[in-house]
Amino acid sequence: MQQVVLKHTLSEKPKAEDFDLVQMPAPTCPEGGVLVQVKYISLDPYVGHLLHKGHMGQTAPEPARGLIPGAVVGEVIESRSDKAGAGDHVHSMDGGWVEVVALTDSQFTVVDTDSVPLSAYAGVLGMPGLTAWAGVTQLARVTDGDVFLVDAAAGPVGGTAGQIARQCGAKTVIGIAGGTEKCRLVEKVYGFDACLDYREAGWREQLGIHAPDGITVHYENVGADMLAFALSHMQPYARVILCGLAAHYHDPEPARILIGPIIGKRASVHGLVVYDFYDRWQAFRDAVAPWVTSGRITICEDRSQGLGEAPALMQKLVNGRNVGKCVVAL
Amino acid sequence: MQQVVLKHTLSEKPKAEDFDLVQMPAPTCPEGGVLVQVKYISLDPYVGHLLHKGHMGQTAPEPARGLIPGAVVGEVIESRSDKAGAGDHVHSMDGGWVEVVALTDSQFTVVDTDSVPLSAYAGVLGMPGLTAWAGVTQLARVTDGDVFLVDAAAGPVGGTAGQIARQCGAKTVIGIAGGTEKCRLVEKVYGFDACLDYREAGWREQLGIHAPDGITVHYENVGADMLAFALSHMQPYARVILCGLAAHYHDPEPARILIGPIIGKRASVHGLVVYDFYDRWQAFRDAVAPWVTSGRITICEDRSQGLGEAPALMQKLVNGRNVGKCVVAL
Repeated sequence: MQQVVLKHTLSEKPKAEDFDLVQMPAPTCPEGGVLVQVKYISLDPYVGHLLHKGHMGQTAPEPARGLIPGAVVGEVIESRSDKAGAGDHVHSMDGGWVEVVALTDSQFTVVDTDSVPLSAYAGVLGMPGLTAWAGVTQLARVTDGDVFLVDAAAGPVGGTAGQIARQCGAKTVIGIAGGTEKCRLVEKVYGFDACLDYREAGWREQLGIHAPDGITVHYENVGADMLAFALSHMQPYARVILCGLAAHYHDPEPARILIGPIIGKRASVHGLVVYDFYDRWQAFRDAVAPWVTSGRITICEDRSQGLGEAPALMQKLVNGRNVGKCVVAL
Repeated sequence: MQQVVLKHTLSEKPKAEDFDLVQMPAPTCPEGGVLVQVKYISLDPYVGHLLHKGHMGQTAPEPARGLIPGAVVGEVIESRSDKAGAGDHVHSMDGGWVEVVALTDSQFTVVDTDSVPLSAYAGVLGMPGLTAWAGVTQLARVTDGDVFLVDAAAGPVGGTAGQIARQCGAKTVIGIAGGTEKCRLVEKVYGFDACLDYREAGWREQLGIHAPDGITVHYENVGADMLAFALSHMQPYARVILCGLAAHYHDPEPARILIGPIIGKRASVHGLVVYDFYDRWQAFRDAVAPWVTSGRITICEDRSQGLGEAPALMQKLVNGRNVGKCVVAL
């Protein structure tokens, strides 16, 4: 089978030429587990971060242990598990950039593809969707009348968060994204009330037009500067979800925020780590899948075809040049 | 009557010689209000902050409009109000450094002195106590088994917060304070399990002895450095109350905190402004007064006698040299 590995240790964010496509022996089916043919690999910003800052960045991974991590969806080709049989579709956070993965029972969930396409489990019904749902419904508890702001709004977490907020009753949903194409996507496809283009001069002043009384919920995916902007436009008692620090993943300076505005606005700030919600996959999918089926929640994919395209798509992702959820179809 | 006023605009934290004791005409009783003989003036850090950074710091107040703000408790000497009659005791946040104040109905609450001394309403049953109660019970919702950390623990907010946390079921209550005398007060009088003396080398390492699994609630009264220390010792899902930034009140640099640990620990951080809770004076006093009466909550006073002593006590307060609640008895 084929697998993508790093050629060398990275000291900065990954580029396409840092990777090699190699031949590897396929794994065997584990006792009490399954062998899965990977159909879609999800590329996510945290993986770009891990490749050069996390444990993988510290030593050059050898091919034998150089599995680049990632969520996958695929089809069971062999089963020694009671949980799934051959032909079933599964989702796993413990996949990687590879054609075939061996998974134990605790490493996958069986997914329903009757009413939604399989690739949805790489995005809106996968980890990015769970992240969005957890922040909006479990931590911020968005409800009728909320004024919701989210950055990285063209991405799968931000885009899904805004759409879930709308389903939860938010009266105004505003995104922040970079560039005309992303902002058009957020407004026209995701149906936000507005998307502020941070590459345009004067974009900050636009928020007041769409949220004249300030925002009640902010969902942070980017970092300190965006957060400071959001804090300065909060209504009292606003809720803030700290989810991602994408702007700082490739930056040696740690992100900081002003304490004064949190006190002044009596904000509640909640840190979100998605794996806390891995015991709620089913509740999340039960809530969100019907919205996907009915078209009330849409997500755009930035899709590449073939495992060998994963490196180029990762380079696009870590530079913010993707539009929509990055998925590699095998 | 006598009143204390500022001699001049302040560009740094107040010293005793910045004030003058002057003679002023006494106010008259307002329609629908009361005239109150001040018995105790509460000196609080936020007033020190206002004197040189807030609105009062911007222009030299003239004697006629130079009332230095402060909470007071006193006795009604004349009433044109249905809410209180002559001889009743009242508490007001709209008093000041003066012998007699005129208050309208919305500016005071009538207080019960049958079971607690009047001066308690300057501290544990006044604004510092409400601040402590609101953070511990309304925002952090301290409950059985919590491991509670609070800084400025010898002060009226920190000292009361820890004692209320204990009454709410906290299994471990730890303070941070500066100096042996304050730490002894926190441990021996307030009954905390431990008080870390931040003036001692190695004090940070002591926390692990008393809270080996980390803390579940942190109540912040001081500023960024203490907060960073607390964040680094939090259990996952810890709650953090951001109440005061005393260390920054006289510092031109705004306080900032690291975002990463908030996400990493999945903390919930709540900004607290006490005046949000002014509609809950009665609920607060109903809850806390019995603990004061029964001796389960104690607070130490740093008391001066006579209005003319207020400036020296304020100087002591803004330099952290007070031990206990600063009260001027008239």
